[in-house]
Amino acid sequence: MKIVDIIEKKKKGITLNEEEIKFFINSVMNKSIEDYQITALLMAVYFKGMDIDETTLLTKYMVESGEILDLSDISNDVIDKHSTGGVGDKITLMFLPIMAAGGLYCAKLSGRGLGHTGGTIDKLESIPGFRTDLSVQEFKMQVKKSKAAIAAQTLSLAPADGRLYALRDVTSTVDIIPLIASSVVSKKIASGANHIVLDVKYGSGAFIKSPEEALKLSQIMVEVAKRLNRNISAVISSMEQPLGRAVGNSLEIIEAIEFLKGNMEDDLKEITFTLAQTAFLKAGKFKDKDEALKYIESLIKNGTALNKFREIIKDQHGLDSVIDDYSKLPQASYRYEVKSFNEGYVSNIDALNIAKACKNLGAGREKKSDSIDYSAGIYLSKKSGEFVNKNDVIAVIYTNNKNSIPDAQTLILDAFKFSPNQPEQKSLIYKILN
Amino acid sequence: MKIVDIIEKKKKGITLNEEEIKFFINSVMNKSIEDYQITALLMAVYFKGMDIDETTLLTKYMVESGEILDLSDISNDVIDKHSTGGVGDKITLMFLPIMAAGGLYCAKLSGRGLGHTGGTIDKLESIPGFRTDLSVQEFKMQVKKSKAAIAAQTLSLAPADGRLYALRDVTSTVDIIPLIASSVVSKKIASGANHIVLDVKYGSGAFIKSPEEALKLSQIMVEVAKRLNRNISAVISSMEQPLGRAVGNSLEIIEAIEFLKGNMEDDLKEITFTLAQTAFLKAGKFKDKDEALKYIESLIKNGTALNKFREIIKDQHGLDSVIDDYSKLPQASYRYEVKSFNEGYVSNIDALNIAKACKNLGAGREKKSDSIDYSAGIYLSKKSGEFVNKNDVIAVIYTNNKNSIPDAQTLILDAFKFSPNQPEQKSLIYKILN
Repeated sequence: MKIVDIIEKKKKGITLNEEEIKFFINSVMNKSIEDYQITALLMAVYFKGMDIDETTLLTKYMVESGEILDLSDISNDVIDKHSTGGVGDKITLMFLPIMAAGGLYCAKLSGRGLGHTGGTIDKLESIPGFRTDLSVQEFKMQVKKSKAAIAAQTLSLAPADGRLYALRDVTSTVDIIPLIASSVVSKKIASGANHIVLDVKYGSGAFIKSPEEALKLSQIMVEVAKRLNRNISAVISSMEQPLGRAVGNSLEIIEAIEFLKGNMEDDLKEITFTLAQTAFLKAGKFKDKDEALKYIESLIKNGTALNKFREIIKDQHGLDSVIDDYSKLPQASYRYEVKSFNEGYVSNIDALNIAKACKNLGAGREKKSDSIDYSAGIYLSKKSGEFVNKNDVIAVIYTNNKNSIPDAQTLILDAFKFSPNQPEQKSLIYKILN
Repeated sequence: MKIVDIIEKKKKGITLNEEEIKFFINSVMNKSIEDYQITALLMAVYFKGMDIDETTLLTKYMVESGEILDLSDISNDVIDKHSTGGVGDKITLMFLPIMAAGGLYCAKLSGRGLGHTGGTIDKLESIPGFRTDLSVQEFKMQVKKSKAAIAAQTLSLAPADGRLYALRDVTSTVDIIPLIASSVVSKKIASGANHIVLDVKYGSGAFIKSPEEALKLSQIMVEVAKRLNRNISAVISSMEQPLGRAVGNSLEIIEAIEFLKGNMEDDLKEITFTLAQTAFLKAGKFKDKDEALKYIESLIKNGTALNKFREIIKDQHGLDSVIDDYSKLPQASYRYEVKSFNEGYVSNIDALNIAKACKNLGAGREKKSDSIDYSAGIYLSKKSGEFVNKNDVIAVIYTNNKNSIPDAQTLILDAFKFSPNQPEQKSLIYKILN
């Protein structure tokens, strides 16, 4: 078998068979084909696509390219969640304690992502002492004991995907739906959980821009995971505006704790509860949505979800007293209030602008080696639908880098759109796939 | 400027501008972009194409990527010919002497091509002593003195094309018309001649399979060369069957000499005369086709074309007495007659089959380092339109490798198609572009 023939076949739009896809992934792993052949094939896939059979095979062989975590000695019902990424996305910090408080096992491995703001691992690491570098043994022990653990991905899960991604990033071949699908699903399958809940976002603050595209991607991910014998659901939601009010690592920890204390922003509540509801129903814990919803609300009200979060922090050597005293979290030297030049109802806050501003302030990283300022970020004092008078504070900037403030301010002012009439508040959820 | 943005642009089908194409070619040359980025862009070009402006710019910067031969001290009317390649294509061996005998300067640089049978340089090197490794000085001196010289390309002409081609060959991105056009035209422009005659072939024995494709490629090459201030013509012809009767290096030298002696196969005559006619007219030597044709015929009849070929051989240190005694050319140890199992008129002889058979016999090379058996090849005793009785000899195999004969015989028998009725003999010429 020759890779040039496989490229030619895909170029002509002919479906690749199992032998060819296996050969491709094996060759990526043992480096028997050249990077310039891989990228030529990926670009052909951009134009000619991959059908569901090809995508499933690609995913299967990517899973098999590395280690596969075995959680069967914990339970046959372990839940994992994955978000395609958004601005102010701290959902995992609430979702996991709720699930575990509700009696389900949650094993969450997270990549240390790049991006404008930190990933979940970064957010948790802003809690003094919090360890995310758990060994497989520690990780599984904790899931058994406390029903929830979250660790940085240290195992080599679906390494073929990593190799492909490194090339896709520099050859404009990231936005290829079957490749995105197999990338996400292969890592989730290798992570060992048999229930997967996908949080798929579209809009300004997401890498997928339209709901139609998000639906297409979700349908493929759900179908591929099912064919590879996983229970899976996908919740598709809008990411035009930041989620919640806090964007930035320690700021988001505070917002997540407040949420678990019962002070829930509407948007965070809608997404978190929908994901939790979907997962509980999928696990067969409840007969209908309303029953699940009432149960989730009770877990917040009676404090068991908050207690579960405290337990996770303790388990992972974090300072759990941050829950009662936010001043124990990293504090920024500069706090700057952004005041409005306009008057009216906030009609939109562009998520990408806010994300860019946060990155300028030090909250994100560009290269894996970049360090993160855990205290940096933005707190949105005003959200969509709220009325703003001239000179009202619309946002607060937190940073240790004074020089980054003016640019961040410009981006924030630019992000806020106003309207004379109060805009209708719509549901963020576009569709749920089961 | 970032290459990933250029790839993205082409992927979306947006026309690249001069700065971007210049950046691309410069980056290919100074290796500031990666091969895997080059191939991703080339695959995007396969799907999205390049318009005539882009192709012209690509050609221009490929020319400028290397040395450019200056022939202006010889004449402002120097002719160069290029064939896209075919089976039994010995046209240059007749075309050059005719042109030079007719008073035009001909400067022909040839790459030492890969393929089933040797290139023109290989054919000439089958003449004992013939030197093709002329220095630029020697090459120009000879053009001045004898009006014709043919040398192996030693200068680094359009080296960017060489780098791109090496990648295209292993990533299924060879068959991209704007890239083929810029590859051919850039090398011809860098070779220094200002009159270019293209011999564009399509069919079984050519890399372009249809006349429509050949026409499209020719139109682009002609337009690009004109925009870059070259006089250019293209003759498009069919290459379904081998040209002439001889395929193989020294066998083709004999056939070319016979042609110049006046023993012209119809197909060779049609192509050679049409190319010569086109070139003479383009150079303004004659008013009309008929006048040119009569003149060309006279150059054969009065022996001046043959004398010119003798002069070229002498100039380049070859044994010119081969013209009078073919036994001085390399001789094969084995001569094997292939006899027909069929009876009827020959309706077709598949060029690709004959080419493959020749390669098996030792007449071609796969890698640049492979050696060639100059004496190996096939002589077609029967051609299209001729009647064959059972057991008639239809072809003669020449080789030094006895073991290669059976396979060659099978390929030859397979190449011949028969019909009970005499097939109509059609013109090989599809179109001429000026």
